[in-house]
Amino acid sequence: MVLDSQRGSAAGATDLECGSVATDPMEFFDRHHTTLRQAVDAIRGRHFWSAYPESPSPKVYGPDAAAEGQAAFDAYLGRDFPLDQAGDDDRVVTERSPYGIELGVGYPHADADTLVAASRATLPGWRDAGVRARTGVCLEILDRLNKRSFEVAHAVQHTSGQAFVMAFQAGGPQAQDRGLEALAYGYDMIASYAPEVRWEKPQRKGAPIVMDKRFHAVPRGVALVIGCTTFPTWNSYPGLFASLVTGNPVIVKPHPRAVLPLAITVAVAREVLVEAGLDPDVVLLAAERPDERLAAELAVRPEVRVVDFTGSTSFGDWLEANATQAFVNTEKAGVNAVVVDSTDAYAGMLANLAFSLSLYSGQMCTTPQNLFVPTGGIATDEGHKSPEQFAADLAEAVRGLLGDPARAAGILGALANDDVLERVEAADGLGETVLKSERIPHPDFADAILRTPAVVRLDAARGDVYGREHFGPVSFVITTEDTAHALRLLGETVTERGALTAAVYSTDEEVLVAAERAALEAGVNLSANLTGQVFVNQSAAFSDYHGSGANPAATASLTDPSFVAGRFHFVQSRRHA
Amino acid sequence: MVLDSQRGSAAGATDLECGSVATDPMEFFDRHHTTLRQAVDAIRGRHFWSAYPESPSPKVYGPDAAAEGQAAFDAYLGRDFPLDQAGDDDRVVTERSPYGIELGVGYPHADADTLVAASRATLPGWRDAGVRARTGVCLEILDRLNKRSFEVAHAVQHTSGQAFVMAFQAGGPQAQDRGLEALAYGYDMIASYAPEVRWEKPQRKGAPIVMDKRFHAVPRGVALVIGCTTFPTWNSYPGLFASLVTGNPVIVKPHPRAVLPLAITVAVAREVLVEAGLDPDVVLLAAERPDERLAAELAVRPEVRVVDFTGSTSFGDWLEANATQAFVNTEKAGVNAVVVDSTDAYAGMLANLAFSLSLYSGQMCTTPQNLFVPTGGIATDEGHKSPEQFAADLAEAVRGLLGDPARAAGILGALANDDVLERVEAADGLGETVLKSERIPHPDFADAILRTPAVVRLDAARGDVYGREHFGPVSFVITTEDTAHALRLLGETVTERGALTAAVYSTDEEVLVAAERAALEAGVNLSANLTGQVFVNQSAAFSDYHGSGANPAATASLTDPSFVAGRFHFVQSRRHA
Repeated sequence: MVLDSQRGSAAGATDLECGSVATDPMEFFDRHHTTLRQAVDAIRGRHFWSAYPESPSPKVYGPDAAAEGQAAFDAYLGRDFPLDQAGDDDRVVTERSPYGIELGVGYPHADADTLVAASRATLPGWRDAGVRARTGVCLEILDRLNKRSFEVAHAVQHTSGQAFVMAFQAGGPQAQDRGLEALAYGYDMIASYAPEVRWEKPQRKGAPIVMDKRFHAVPRGVALVIGCTTFPTWNSYPGLFASLVTGNPVIVKPHPRAVLPLAITVAVAREVLVEAGLDPDVVLLAAERPDERLAAELAVRPEVRVVDFTGSTSFGDWLEANATQAFVNTEKAGVNAVVVDSTDAYAGMLANLAFSLSLYSGQMCTTPQNLFVPTGGIATDEGHKSPEQFAADLAEAVRGLLGDPARAAGILGALANDDVLERVEAADGLGETVLKSERIPHPDFADAILRTPAVVRLDAARGDVYGREHFGPVSFVITTEDTAHALRLLGETVTERGALTAAVYSTDEEVLVAAERAALEAGVNLSANLTGQVFVNQSAAFSDYHGSGANPAATASLTDPSFVAGRFHFVQSRRHA
Repeated sequence: MVLDSQRGSAAGATDLECGSVATDPMEFFDRHHTTLRQAVDAIRGRHFWSAYPESPSPKVYGPDAAAEGQAAFDAYLGRDFPLDQAGDDDRVVTERSPYGIELGVGYPHADADTLVAASRATLPGWRDAGVRARTGVCLEILDRLNKRSFEVAHAVQHTSGQAFVMAFQAGGPQAQDRGLEALAYGYDMIASYAPEVRWEKPQRKGAPIVMDKRFHAVPRGVALVIGCTTFPTWNSYPGLFASLVTGNPVIVKPHPRAVLPLAITVAVAREVLVEAGLDPDVVLLAAERPDERLAAELAVRPEVRVVDFTGSTSFGDWLEANATQAFVNTEKAGVNAVVVDSTDAYAGMLANLAFSLSLYSGQMCTTPQNLFVPTGGIATDEGHKSPEQFAADLAEAVRGLLGDPARAAGILGALANDDVLERVEAADGLGETVLKSERIPHPDFADAILRTPAVVRLDAARGDVYGREHFGPVSFVITTEDTAHALRLLGETVTERGALTAAVYSTDEEVLVAAERAALEAGVNLSANLTGQVFVNQSAAFSDYHGSGANPAATASLTDPSFVAGRFHFVQSRRHA
């Protein structure tokens, strides 16, 4: 048998026991080749591009897609999730919808030994399938996930608490775009280097030395993706597809509160693998019992050589310190900052900030927390504004945005869990309340807990409060000596506690340059003067980096070369021609 | 001041105090642009290519180059090395030539605080110079190092113990090629992604959203390169240039026994930096007092964010466990393996192996240690050979190769230190001696210690002996049940203790395929049927990977994407157009 790890097909893979005719993964590769080519162009050019339409319109996804998605979701409720993988007889039921509906979905359970053994056994076949076959399989998985975006959207809504449209966009097409982006990086990083070469070294006398060399991309080992509650798919897909394309089989360990979106993902992946004549255990679901700490157990197994994690700083730090056998990528807490210096679009700035603070009740890792305003106030197109006035106007903008309950529900979504509720209820005691968080009803779900954002005013001296993350709808207007002081505090807080986003508002080019320098020094991505329909807490796949790896909030960006390069090695062979 | 970290010139750098006219680094970039383009083509194509001729011929380097190099080297002896960098008044003198000549070169000394502060202070300027300016500076440094290859060769010879021609080739042009290879990877990995883009997102109604985005390559921080005695330049240049091109200032910490080659390197780098109007402290020498443990102190400093190390497994493991704030690359000990199954060129195989065992007295991290031979013997073009016969013939081939003392000295070089001598003297007691190591005189240097290789026969059961590294001219002929057993042992030893090289000899394609699979599983680069002028312990820059990162001998390959990607992050800014 000839090894052909770079360009191979799955020739040699065992026939399916069920007797169905396998699809050569190269057919998948060919079918989606244009998508791949465009994705690779986009990661290099960083221009606007998207493979999966973000509009849930029937014109885009078809007239029946919404109803079919709803029906598919409903069919899961109160039943065992259809997933055929090894495990014990237990079923795990750990989810509850932030909207109050009964989920009651049971997932198969397996212990770490079973999962790791099953995953490790698939590595040689998945590696030897070659990068093009793996890419074809992944492209087909993404395509099928896209077609099931409505189904996934309901699953994301009822685990994360996101409003439906956001759950559709961020949990469906935008997550798929991020997965494709990671896939494109991995494919490109392997395919850019020759898989084989005839090497001819001239000699001073006589014929050249001629050797044939082959270069195999070899995966590190079993990969573990640890999902979070708030963005179960969006934050998991980059690691999942980056590991898969580079040859690592993946164990997907969802957050116990947000299993369904990833269970559907795993089921789709396994379905495509089987069709491709490959072992479905290349992708495994690791649903855990409450308090089982399965992630921690899996993460330190010697066979597990890649870990992708989104969640708390404490567990992320633990993984970095303890999973030393693995290439560990973590996304943790941060204190996102906004520096307000001046603006020529005061109303637009307030509207933009109000939406950023309100979207998904501030439960985004990218939501601004700290708004620094100089004590002398800011110049605007509506005249000079003191910090007090700015804070009051921001509060009014939030109230205006959320005045209509139906619209408010569509923006806020529901609080994901009681921890968020506790934090927003504690906000009042943190300083001078500018905007008090209020509970508002959801028009469709009586049990959903919806809270409007709290805004609290603090002096710059209260770093003890604003210097740590208050995940949820809690933000601070912080009075600084001047803009230079604000930029210093941005740098200090981000350097110490990390951030995924930073923003600046200024009409002064010198301030914008200084802000860019401060952001560069602190290693955080900066948005300047967002007053329209682009928000600091949103990043566009293929163009915007999510995080940077250059500050404590994350060890890597989604998605850049270092996020992918550590997942595989090149191993070569050579012989005389 | 406009930040321009991707395409910038050094505009804005302070004028030189000495009043000399600075060369815009973009001139260096333009001057060497063809070299860069060819290097990038070569890392992607993996074909034969070399920028720096490996022949020390006067036809290549000019009629005066040899004499000038000798004179330059002689001028260093017994004096303070001319290096103008901050430090205390101490001079450090720690070298002794394995050839017995007096070196007595004094190097400036500085403590960790001074070094880290000086290095860190240069980071913003080096970062903001931009990738093309940094690449231009690095290309000019390499070009000047190449012109000084004779001088460096003497320095390498009299610190490492390598014979002169090898010191010239491996310490000069081949090291420069490896440095250029790393530079090309770093340049390519930054330049492949757009430094800025106008992003236009179509809207269903009305004008598109248009944003201008900039993407800055941001270095991790201060980089530390920790050199070794045996290949002070070859093993240091990849890390040095990979860090420099990605924007990290570098502290070069040579082994106390091999300072001069890196002191020359640092001096050349600083000379070019000054000419480019940049801060020379971008490259600093960290010469240490005996037993100062400066490397360990520097490696855990929070400002130090990249560490490249070649040396012992114990210190490499220590760095990996303790320098957790840094991106750590280590190259450590290994047990390189050869599986002998059959050959159609018995004499060629023996000659090739004899040379590999003898070159630089086995003091290469790539020298084969374990030669596995089936107990039933091997089929050859000269008839069947038992393991005993193979071992005897190998011993005879080594004797033949080293029969002439002058030729032997040119191959063996001198033992680098007493540890190597102790190991070769201990070889006799390890098993059945097949070839006894002998001391031979050097024609020019009476005090040089030259030892021929020791070959010891062992049974496969003696994993306690051959399962660990015996660095130096010590190798084992190990009798295995059959070839399959040999391949299993190759896999087991490499997986457990690591290896930088593996080789197989067989006329059976199935065995070659099985060997390639075993090497792939163990993560080690494989050479098959080397019977001519390519040796398993030599790798060619731009085509052969040195190490893989996939086994315990090294965390990364020199040079591949993962060796470079961890040295920088992309940080972006965006604003509406």
